[in-house]
Amino acid sequence: MHTFTIKTRRSQECIDITDELVDIIKKSCISDGICHVYVPHATAAIIINENADPNIQTDFINVLNKVFPSHSGYLHDRIDNNAQSHMIASCLGPSETIPISNGKLQLGTWQAIMLVELDGPRPSRKIHVQIIPAT
Amino acid sequence: MHTFTIKTRRSQECIDITDELVDIIKKSCISDGICHVYVPHATAAIIINENADPNIQTDFINVLNKVFPSHSGYLHDRIDNNAQSHMIASCLGPSETIPISNGKLQLGTWQAIMLVELDGPRPSRKIHVQIIPAT
Amino acid sequence: MHTFTIKTRRSQECIDITDELVDIIKKSCISDGICHVYVPHATAAIIINENADPNIQTDFINVLNKVFPSHSGYLHDRIDNNAQSHMIASCLGPSETIPISNGKLQLGTWQAIMLVELDGPRPSRKIHVQIIPAT
Repeated sequence: MHTFTIKTRRSQECIDITDELVDIIKKSCISDGICHVYVPHATAAIIINENADPNIQTDFINVLNKVFPSHSGYLHDRIDNNAQSHMIASCLGPSETIPISNGKLQLGTWQAIMLVELDGPRPSRKIHVQIIPAT
Repeated sequence: MHTFTIKTRRSQECIDITDELVDIIKKSCISDGICHVYVPHATAAIIINENADPNIQTDFINVLNKVFPSHSGYLHDRIDNNAQSHMIASCLGPSETIPISNGKLQLGTWQAIMLVELDGPRPSRKIHVQIIPAT
Repeated sequence: MHTFTIKTRRSQECIDITDELVDIIKKSCISDGICHVYVPHATAAIIINENADPNIQTDFINVLNKVFPSHSGYLHDRIDNNAQSHMIASCLGPSETIPISNGKLQLGTWQAIMLVELDGPRPSRKIHVQIIPAT
């Protein structure tokens, strides 16, 4: 298992981690299989989408705040004031899996892998990567 | 593949199944890989989030009911009165995958694996577990 | 890795791809493991739910349009008029993983695997399939 860390700078943001993952795949010398990307935090998530226009990430954070409003009478806010972060993290999920073929991540042209920070900023968010061969 | 069952007691609830999974990993003697947890039901889901404060699960069920209101003119309600359960299950998804390293599930400190019952109570919800080695 | 393509006919729709996947599993002769299904497009997704009543897919598309309204002031709409498609795709995710046991996909009785088209119609949506043995 490979682990790297990401420093986050805002309370909510999407951070492109595709380059880090491409690098890990290259060094692994695995030709065919899957790459599992996992964030071991309950107020963060992993998504895959377009990052050629970074506005998409701003739009995504904005729409998540509309769908899951902050401080909306959540019980957990009385204990730790970040219930909204947990709600969104539960819905998006802590991991994504991407196929590997010919030694490369098979992302589409418009796909990037992103860490979603939902309760930042944090000095260090861990990301675990497992590479599993197909045979 | 390992399969176990969970009895659910409410129409909607989150049930922590981390202990069952830790046990399966321990017995498998696999040191490095991934654990895939899958619920073969169309009105249930698997999520990963905090359970140290169980209020988070109550908040999550409540917010899901706001985002996906029940009996909101769904066509499927005319056939089987549980369209909302299917909507939420489709969105959350039936599985999660967690990395294994040093023979242990690499959950974060605040992460637990939970079955989400969306159309209960049910005497027996199946959970399938596949453990895949990294090499 | 196996790849096949699907032609989509509407701007938004769910298309059942279970038969294509059952076929790939059968030909792979793998008895025990996982099947990873991945769509390499940023405006499509993979979900698992019931398709015995196809109304569930109509209900799902309808509720997604309520939760993530189209043209709701998204910045990306000024560049490429499909921000809503990206929002929904980010939330649903581009892949699902299903256990294989006794040479068969372990879908529940009421589960089907579906491509979700969110920005169609498109002449060709790719679907990548990786089959990973358990041992």
